[in-house]
Parts: sequence; C-alpha cells; structure tokens
Amino acid sequence: MRASQLPLFTSKNDPSDAQVASHRLLARAGYIRKQGSGLYIYLPFGDMVHRKIVEIVREEMNRFGGVEVSLPVITPAELWQESGRWDIMGKEMMRMHDRHEVGYALGPTHEEAMTDLARSFLQSYKQLPINLYQIGKKYRDEIRPRYGLIRCREFTMKDAYSFHADDASLDATYQKMREAYRAIFERCGLKTIPVEADSGNMGGSGSEEFMVASQIGEETLLLCSDEACGYRSNQEKTEFISANYGLQPIVSGAIEDFDTGELKTIEEVAQLTGGAPRDFIKAVIYEDAAKIIVCFIPGDRELSEVKMKNLAGVNDYWLASEETIKAVTGAEPGYAGPVDLKYKDGDAVSVTAPPTGHKKTLRIFFDNHLKGRSGLIAGANRTHFHKKNVAEGRDFTITEAHDLINAHAGDICPQCKKAELTETRGIEVGHIFKLGKKYSEKMKLTVLDPNGKPLTPTMGCYGIGVGRTMATAIEQNHDERGLVWHKNLSPFLVYLVSLAKGDAETAFVDKLYATLQAHGISVYLDDRDERAGVKFNDAELVGFPFIVTVGKKTLESGKIELKLRRSGEKFELSESELIAKLRGD
Amino acid sequence: MRASQLPLFTSKNDPSDAQVASHRLLARAGYIRKQGSGLYIYLPFGDMVHRKIVEIVREEMNRFGGVEVSLPVITPAELWQESGRWDIMGKEMMRMHDRHEVGYALGPTHEEAMTDLARSFLQSYKQLPINLYQIGKKYRDEIRPRYGLIRCREFTMKDAYSFHADDASLDATYQKMREAYRAIFERCGLKTIPVEADSGNMGGSGSEEFMVASQIGEETLLLCSDEACGYRSNQEKTEFISANYGLQPIVSGAIEDFDTGELKTIEEVAQLTGGAPRDFIKAVIYEDAAKIIVCFIPGDRELSEVKMKNLAGVNDYWLASEETIKAVTGAEPGYAGPVDLKYKDGDAVSVTAPPTGHKKTLRIFFDNHLKGRSGLIAGANRTHFHKKNVAEGRDFTITEAHDLINAHAGDICPQCKKAELTETRGIEVGHIFKLGKKYSEKMKLTVLDPNGKPLTPTMGCYGIGVGRTMATAIEQNHDERGLVWHKNLSPFLVYLVSLAKGDAETAFVDKLYATLQAHGISVYLDDRDERAGVKFNDAELVGFPFIVTVGKKTLESGKIELKLRRSGEKFELSESELIAKLRGD
Repeated sequence: MRASQLPLFTSKNDPSDAQVASHRLLARAGYIRKQGSGLYIYLPFGDMVHRKIVEIVREEMNRFGGVEVSLPVITPAELWQESGRWDIMGKEMMRMHDRHEVGYALGPTHEEAMTDLARSFLQSYKQLPINLYQIGKKYRDEIRPRYGLIRCREFTMKDAYSFHADDASLDATYQKMREAYRAIFERCGLKTIPVEADSGNMGGSGSEEFMVASQIGEETLLLCSDEACGYRSNQEKTEFISANYGLQPIVSGAIEDFDTGELKTIEEVAQLTGGAPRDFIKAVIYEDAAKIIVCFIPGDRELSEVKMKNLAGVNDYWLASEETIKAVTGAEPGYAGPVDLKYKDGDAVSVTAPPTGHKKTLRIFFDNHLKGRSGLIAGANRTHFHKKNVAEGRDFTITEAHDLINAHAGDICPQCKKAELTETRGIEVGHIFKLGKKYSEKMKLTVLDPNGKPLTPTMGCYGIGVGRTMATAIEQNHDERGLVWHKNLSPFLVYLVSLAKGDAETAFVDKLYATLQAHGISVYLDDRDERAGVKFNDAELVGFPFIVTVGKKTLESGKIELKLRRSGEKFELSESELIAKLRGD
Repeated sequence: MRASQLPLFTSKNDPSDAQVASHRLLARAGYIRKQGSGLYIYLPFGDMVHRKIVEIVREEMNRFGGVEVSLPVITPAELWQESGRWDIMGKEMMRMHDRHEVGYALGPTHEEAMTDLARSFLQSYKQLPINLYQIGKKYRDEIRPRYGLIRCREFTMKDAYSFHADDASLDATYQKMREAYRAIFERCGLKTIPVEADSGNMGGSGSEEFMVASQIGEETLLLCSDEACGYRSNQEKTEFISANYGLQPIVSGAIEDFDTGELKTIEEVAQLTGGAPRDFIKAVIYEDAAKIIVCFIPGDRELSEVKMKNLAGVNDYWLASEETIKAVTGAEPGYAGPVDLKYKDGDAVSVTAPPTGHKKTLRIFFDNHLKGRSGLIAGANRTHFHKKNVAEGRDFTITEAHDLINAHAGDICPQCKKAELTETRGIEVGHIFKLGKKYSEKMKLTVLDPNGKPLTPTMGCYGIGVGRTMATAIEQNHDERGLVWHKNLSPFLVYLVSLAKGDAETAFVDKLYATLQAHGISVYLDDRDERAGVKFNDAELVGFPFIVTVGKKTLESGKIELKLRRSGEKFELSESELIAKLRGD
C-alpha cells in the first residue's frame, strides 16, 4: 500500500489527556482518535492491528475447540432479570429502552445471552461439552474512562462460554483455554503473568487472570518470592496469612473502658496508650440499600473491599453514613467495637437515611487474625471511650472468622507458607473463570443425562480484551521515538521510505516495492512529497518492524539500507539479501 | 471441519413468526436464532457466511480506493445536535444516557461521526478526495421488526463517506462506488437492480439504491417498459407525469357552492355530480409539532408522503386532527378546498391541540397537475358544501406547483416520456448518495484550497447491509429442501456425508476428507451417529454447493457420489475426477 492511497494520520501533538505511553503514542502515530469520553476511533493502521489480533484470537480459539457465534450487543432486560443481575450490575452497565419502553443492556458480558442460546438447542449430554465464543463490542460505563484503549467504554472482547456435564470436563476445557490464551499472547508478543483471581459477581469457583505487568496497572499482583513455589495472585484474591499474628498471652487485667476524648484514630489512641496498632480492633462499616456491614480486623491492616463485598453479597455499597454508624453503635463515628454492641449479626437496624425510616440487616464479620487473641484495644460503642484488655472468647466471641485483609508485599505466601510475597502492578488482558452452575440453574438450562434424567450443566467463561491487548503490547514495546510492533501485529512488515527524485529513482523504488510484495512481504510505501526527516520520523513513530530506505545513494551503491525498528541496527544489503532478511530465511 | 467439532444447529420446526423464506430457512438450517424482537444470533454457519460477505465488501472497497476505519457505535448527542438531526431522527434512532446523563445515539448511520473525524485531520485540498469506510453494527428501532434479517434492529453495515474538493471528484468516487457495488453483489451471486432513489433526510442531490426484486420487498420500484430507455426508480423518487391530465376546456359556468350533505369522499360526491374523480381537487392535510401541511392533488391520485415530507421538511408528522382541520378550514373534515380558504401559505394558525394554544405555520402545496385546469370540483371550506366550476387562475392561483403524486404502473416514464412504467417490489441492499455539503457546512469542515482560502468539501455516502445481503441471497436461492448458497458465500464448499460403518469405511472417509482439504477444498464432514436420511436432509437444508456421499458402496465401486445442491444433478466419480470437479478445473 502506498501513502498516496492509504494516508498517514500521524500528528505532532500528544492528546492533552494522555497519561500513558500507549494512549499518547497510538494517538500520535495515528492509530486511534478519541471521539468522546472513553470512545475511540480506530484509524486505518489501528484497525489493521485490531483485526490482526482478532484473527489470532479466532485461530487459537478454533484450534482449541471453540465454536464461533455472534450475539446481539443489546440484550433484553428480561434475560438479566432471570439471572438477577439487572439490579446488581449497577451503573457500569449501560442501559436503554426501545420505543415500546422495553429495557435492554448494552452487554458488558454475555453469560445470560449465551445461556439463553444454550438452552435453545442443548437437549442431551451427548452435545456436551461445547465452548461457544464470539468476538464483538462490549460496553462498560466506567466512572473515569482513561488511559486510552486500556480503560474505555466501548471495546471489543472475545468472550467464550463453555457448557459441561461434569467438573472434570469443565476443568479440561479450562486448561485448554489456558493453553489457548498462552498461545494468543505469545503470538501477540505480549508477556503476561497468569494470576489467581477473584470471580466477583460472575459467580464461580476458580478463576485466573492474564496480567500485563505495568506501573499504570489498576490491579495489584502478589508473587511469591520463591520461584519454586510460583504462587501468583491478584491482591483481591490473595489470602492473607502472616507470621506476625501469633496469639497474645492473656493479659491479666479485666476489660475496662477508658476515656480517649476527641482521639478517634488508631494511631492517635495508640500514641496515648503506648499500644501497637496490631493490638487494636479496627472497625470498618459499609452499607448498601438493604444491609449494614461491620467488619472487624487487626488495627494495623487494611480491609479488602473485594473480600468484604463477596462475603456480604453486595455490589453497589458505600461507607456507612454518620447516622447509620450512630444507629448501630449508639456512638459518634470512631468508637465502634465488638464488645457491648447492642445488635448482633442478622438483626434489623432502623436507620434514618437513605431511604428514611428503612430497616437494614446488620452483618458483622470478623477477620481470622482476631480469633483467640486478647489484650486488645477496641472502640467502646460509647462516644469518647475505648476499651482495653479486650479478649476474644471472653468479652466477645467469634463463631466464624473470615479472610478480610488485603495482603501486601512482605506478607507470607499463602501457598508455600514460607517465602514472602512481592508486589507488582498489572493490567488485565484476559480472564478465565469456572462459573459453575450459577447461570444454568437460574436460567433453567438442563440436558438429559445418560439415564434420561435432567442434568444442569456446569459452565466456564473466558474473556480477552482486544483493544487492551493492543494497548498493552505498546506499553511493553515502545521507545521515545514511537511504537515498536511485533511482526504479527504490525499493519505492515516494512516501511519503505522513498527518497526518490526523478524517474529513474522512482522506477527503482516502484520495482523494489513490487518485488517485495511478490515475495509475500507486506510493504507500506511512503511516496509522499515530504522531506526525508518527516518520513524518517513517521517511520519510527508508526513502528513497523523494518524500515527500508531507498534514494539516490541506493542506485549508486546498489545497496539498500535496512534499519531494524526495535534495535536501531542498520544494514546495507543487496536486494536478495534484503528479501532473505525480511522473510526471516 | 467435522460435525463432531462444529455441530449443526438445524431444527425440524419453522420459527412461529417466520413469514418469508430466508427467515424460515436460515432459522431451520441453524444459521440464525432470534434473541429478541429484531435481534438475531448468528450461529456458526451464519457467522461464517456473514464474515465472507464482510470480506468481499472489504476487498472491493479497498480495490476501489476505500480507507477502512472503525468508529464507536455509540455517538455523542452533541454531534447529532450540531447537524440538527438529534431532534429530527425520531424514534427510529435508539438513544441512551450514560451515568453522567450525557446522551448518545446507537448510530443508525455515521455522517456526523465521520464528518467529525474528517475535520480532525483534513487541512488541505491535497488530502482530497478521501473515502473512509467502516464495517460495523448499526441500530434502527423499527416499529415492526420482521422478515428475520431483512428488517431487524441490530445489523451490520458497511458505510463509507467520501470527501471532495468539487463535484467532479464526488462524481468520480460515486461512479467507483457503483462499480464496487456491482462487483460486490456479483461476487455474492446476488442479482440487484440499481434504481434512482430518494435521499430522505440524509440530505443530498443524487442517490441510487441497489434493490433485490422480491414480492416481500417494502419498496415499490418503477421500471420503464422500454428497455432501451432503461429508467429504473424507487416509487418514492419517481416523477409523476401522465398523458391523462391535459388541460380542460374552460367550463363556462361561474363557480358556485352546492350542498353535498353528509357526502364527503370524492367517490360519493362524484356519484352525486356525475363528475370524474380526476376533475376533483383532493385535499390531504398533515401536521407536525410546528407546521400544518395542506396538499392539493387531483382527486383520482394518491399523495406521495415522501414527496410531501421532503417538500415540507418534516420528519415526525401525522394526519391532521379534526381540531386542526377545523382551525384551518372552518369546516368539518371532508370539505377542504383551495378557494375561500381564510389562511394563506405561511400564515400562523392557532390550533387547540397538540400542544394546546400553540400556533403552527400553515404550508399549502399544489400538485403540478392542477395548474391551469378548470371545471374542477373542490371542498368549499364550509361544512356540507363543495364548489363546482372551479378554475385555477381565476378562483385560486397556483404560483408554484410541485410533484406530489405517487407514480404507478401504467403511468408515463418520466425519462423517455413515451413508454409506460411497470411495477415490481424490492428490498434495498445497498444505497449510494451524493450528500453535498449538508454535513460539512453544518459541522464546519473546511480545508484550504490551492489559494489558501477555506473550501467546504462536498460529500458522498455509500451503504451496504451485510445481513440483508445474506438474507436476500437466500430469497433468490432456495428451494423446498432448503438453502442454496453461492460458492463464495457458503460456509463450506462441500458437505461430506459419511455413511461409514466399521474401521475400513471410516478410514476411507477420513482419507478423502484429508485429501480434499489438502487440495484447498473446504469440507464439512458429517460424522454424526445419525441415520442416512437425517444426514441427507441436513445436507440439503444447509445448502453447501456440493454434497459428497461416501459409504460401503463407494468402497465396493471405487466411485464417489457427488450431488450438485442447486440442480440436483448426480455424478459417480473417481477421486481425481471429484477433485477436478470441486475445484472447477
């Protein structure tokens, strides 16, 4: 293709809102352009890369047994109501109504729609397993769309959904999808880290994310420092265990209230008492429309909202209001504790707002690391007072303890229970889940088993973000001059810079262009009437693997200049040497 | 591919709502499945055909100079407000609001979005012409989605938008697109009829539709019966001319009112007076939120709503209410006429509803075929009265006459002005428009001309419905046994029916399957454990061009059975003969 047919869309300026390299460089190099908040146009080169990734994903999905279909992007509300997710998907799910006031979601995911398809044709266990996938648009109404293609609101995903007669079959497909994903990312030249992941409101029993390590990643990954152990997990999912929380010797003194005046935070009270934050009981209180959730954890740690959320079964929640805290504890915020709390787990508490006069169910959750401990300091549920010498089992009792803490670098690996965890940040590009029977049960999908009895299939689901794969490939592969594409993703293999002046030189360039194409090499010929410097800059910026330059010098020497975009290495080659090099012979 | 890997989704039952062959057969053959009103799932074979059409469209668009991009499906309301179409697109345009209450359209078309892209990079006339296209989802909230893929609410379109420095350049690209469309439909094996078309609210000066003749078509096409003339037009666009409306001799009598009692319709009054309906003046009155539109046409013809709509510049309009008619004429409905009407064109008329107390602008339009005529009968704007001996130029005056009538079969061809028109029905599969400067002006797209002065580019736009192309290919190619695909669209070239029993026969089938694939022939191997009859029926139903059957008989005779799906012709061939036949050698 020639620049005179397929123009460059390069720009001299960075987009004003670009905070990350992939956004900045993909926009400058003319691959993408913003059309609205979180909405991107794919320009010709961007569209070509995007389609190459789609094709790689399709080939590997097919190779690993996927069956491609294509579902409507807008999915009827009634399907989401059947699964119960119409109400819990919250504002991230874009919705609309048609002229008859019938509701639809702009699908952020397609479990319901795909289960609906499955129940329309699955009749017998003999049809299982089946792994249906599609590659299409998805919508997510992000609060803060940013980082260009990494966090946008309309994007292309490959989403697959498998249906199985039993767990062994699900596991086999799950393992195949792991292989497919490894193959896909390898072909894209992308280094990913598979980590254990939380399943969120997708339901399910096991899941793994394919992460790209990146400082701008929104996820925190915890990796075991012992490579032999190999534990890798999303912080959301990482079980917190620590050598530092051995049981305390029982402190002889009786429990007693003490006046802490205006001091509320653990740090302030710890300074007063001389105690360590780890011996405090920290209370964190959330609420949603129906529930109040009180979590007690050791004072020196952070609550994991994801663990709380999964435990409490909430989605749209917020930190409890002052009124709600007063209703639960009888005290100002800052004095909540597990002793002398007038309500117990499961009680209905009258709250004033929101909505006014409503009763909400109280849930109380204790972290594992408070169980069996004593000599603790906690809020007294009494304004200006805390309690000391608090002992679990005496002053309050934990019947069921949970993992509620965010693990961090330096904590003990929950797999080998020896080495410490290290931390890195990552961007999710793929995700595989064992969904279990959540959707098949709710949507009444059954098949007949070998005995003619109804069997509810178990399910898996498997996603890859196409635009994110493209963006993270650039996060991992760029330099100050521009993009650096892997040959499998690059719009063209060769950027041919023509410095031709006059007919002889132009004829030489045209002949080389034709020859390379005849050898199956994809070439972009920069035949613009521009200065050499402009062409070289654009060649580096758009980042095809090979830059070939032809001009007067070439005709004189018979040697063609080849530059490798990634390394900057230069070669002077004959035509046949050049062809061999470009073909990787 | 084997049926054991890629299952069939055939069904024994027709969908209950299927009224047309393509809907019925595509559903039964397992190519599509409905998921909501006007929302279709593409099953594996359907998705394969769809992608083949997309690829043909892409190749031809590229060959004819198209530059592929991909725009977001949801387009910000502010772009539609800039062009003024946010308000006039009506309920057919699906809309939504994000979490910040910002409005978006689920794009039914992308003139605004593409012009927005163009103004972001077009700076100089040197960048023109450029023809940007995309292949993606479109949305249209049809009042009555029906006919399966022919009239659905979510569908894939190729839409192209070209930008030009002058009309000659636009015309050149328009002609290229005609060629591209001819090539596309030819490769799809689809017979199309290009017709002159109305440009509707797209703006523009010239347009042509590619229609597939079909009894279920929603468009009426008028074709000149003289092939040498070759005039072909959508009825919406066809100028009405007739030999039957010569001027009447002036009837001597003076104009006078006469009592027609409860008789209101032209037929009733004609029976009373003995006059012919063609000598009546028919009044048809519409209104929208801002206007009342009175159209006067000859009494024996039908008003063209499209012509009225374009003339009046309205989109969401309705037949005028009784109150509105009374406000305009001072009489009950049924007595409107051009004489003694108390308002004139452009007057503001107070109407009671809707909305109450509002004033609407009156527009009065006369059809060409009333100009200069006399001896006419018209409503008297007085309940129970009509007027006779009405003469244009004496009793009322037409300053500007318009073409307001729907032409029909039997009318004179407006091109050769000799032969009669014939009528057929058609389905639109493609449409090319000369848009002119409507969008570039409204959205302030300018480039610098050779003298450094701003130039507003003129535009064209060009659409093809991918799903409709697929459905109409079936409307034209099916029989009572099922689908009949053109080889360029068929999911596979060959349906290989295996009747193998035992290892030797299975090995023979597997070897043939491998051999055909090695020769570049795409094969679907029906290796199911089903009766021969089921396999033959499915082979006919899914409609691949070639059906090859292998069983015990094949091993005995050494001859492989080949059946041509379209003609039913059968052959007994050796393997090498079969391969030659399938490859079309």
